[in-house]
Amino acid sequence: MKHAVAAATLALFAAFPAAAQFAKPTDAVKYRESAFKLMATHFGRINAMAQGKVPFDAKAAQANAEVLSVLAKLPWDAFPAGSNVGNTEAKPEVWSQPDKFKTGAQQLMDNVAKLDAAAKAGSLDQLKAAAGAVGKSCKSCHEAFKKD
Amino acid sequence: MKHAVAAATLALFAAFPAAAQFAKPTDAVKYRESAFKLMATHFGRINAMAQGKVPFDAKAAQANAEVLSVLAKLPWDAFPAGSNVGNTEAKPEVWSQPDKFKTGAQQLMDNVAKLDAAAKAGSLDQLKAAAGAVGKSCKSCHEAFKKD
Repeated sequence: MKHAVAAATLALFAAFPAAAQFAKPTDAVKYRESAFKLMATHFGRINAMAQGKVPFDAKAAQANAEVLSVLAKLPWDAFPAGSNVGNTEAKPEVWSQPDKFKTGAQQLMDNVAKLDAAAKAGSLDQLKAAAGAVGKSCKSCHEAFKKD
Repeated sequence: MKHAVAAATLALFAAFPAAAQFAKPTDAVKYRESAFKLMATHFGRINAMAQGKVPFDAKAAQANAEVLSVLAKLPWDAFPAGSNVGNTEAKPEVWSQPDKFKTGAQQLMDNVAKLDAAAKAGSLDQLKAAAGAVGKSCKSCHEAFKKD
């Protein structure tokens, strides 16, 4: 019952409702880990500029933010009921606190959209603020929903 | 010298020239494997429709093709010289035959663009033809450049 509620709640923001099924639960685990890996890479490149670790390159920031905007929508369909399996780094709270998880995912997507807008504007100051907000979204969700 | 030529050739179609560096060669391996994993998932969903294994859902086909279009550009920057390491499934031919590798990557991207157009058109017949071409691109590159 709990799982059914969680699945229904998560499906509310499914980008691929008719075809989001994974053949095996471990396929969902691998898929979401791949999406997070790519997100971390592209956000990391922007964040390095925002933190002054590499020179600001407006074109590169924009390209990375565009890709990140697409990637940020992907992982959330890949936590179906029954996929708390294998070597997943997801905590059980993903499925026991679906509303909180969904809110965190939506906040990340909203903050990534703002980061994309800042990158398009070409302003390093805007990029710094927006990257900070994305970083906080990552961190708060990881604390609540990701194993160390 | 060979590596320098390969790196220069691959950089010709780099989407993220100024920030494509990976901190460690294994980061590049993980990144490209993640990109291929997501590509396989989204193409697999379209291909299942094209092959009649699941009912055709025009909206889902379009959503998956849009994501695939972005993903299909990602892996190719993640084969820098020196990243034939760890448990990579890449054959050494990636670096010893950079022109052939580049041509294969470009063909895939071209075929994915056609698949995206077919999905947007909402035609199952067009989708079948375009998915077949993408599948052939995957297969021929895997035969030449991916370990079994």
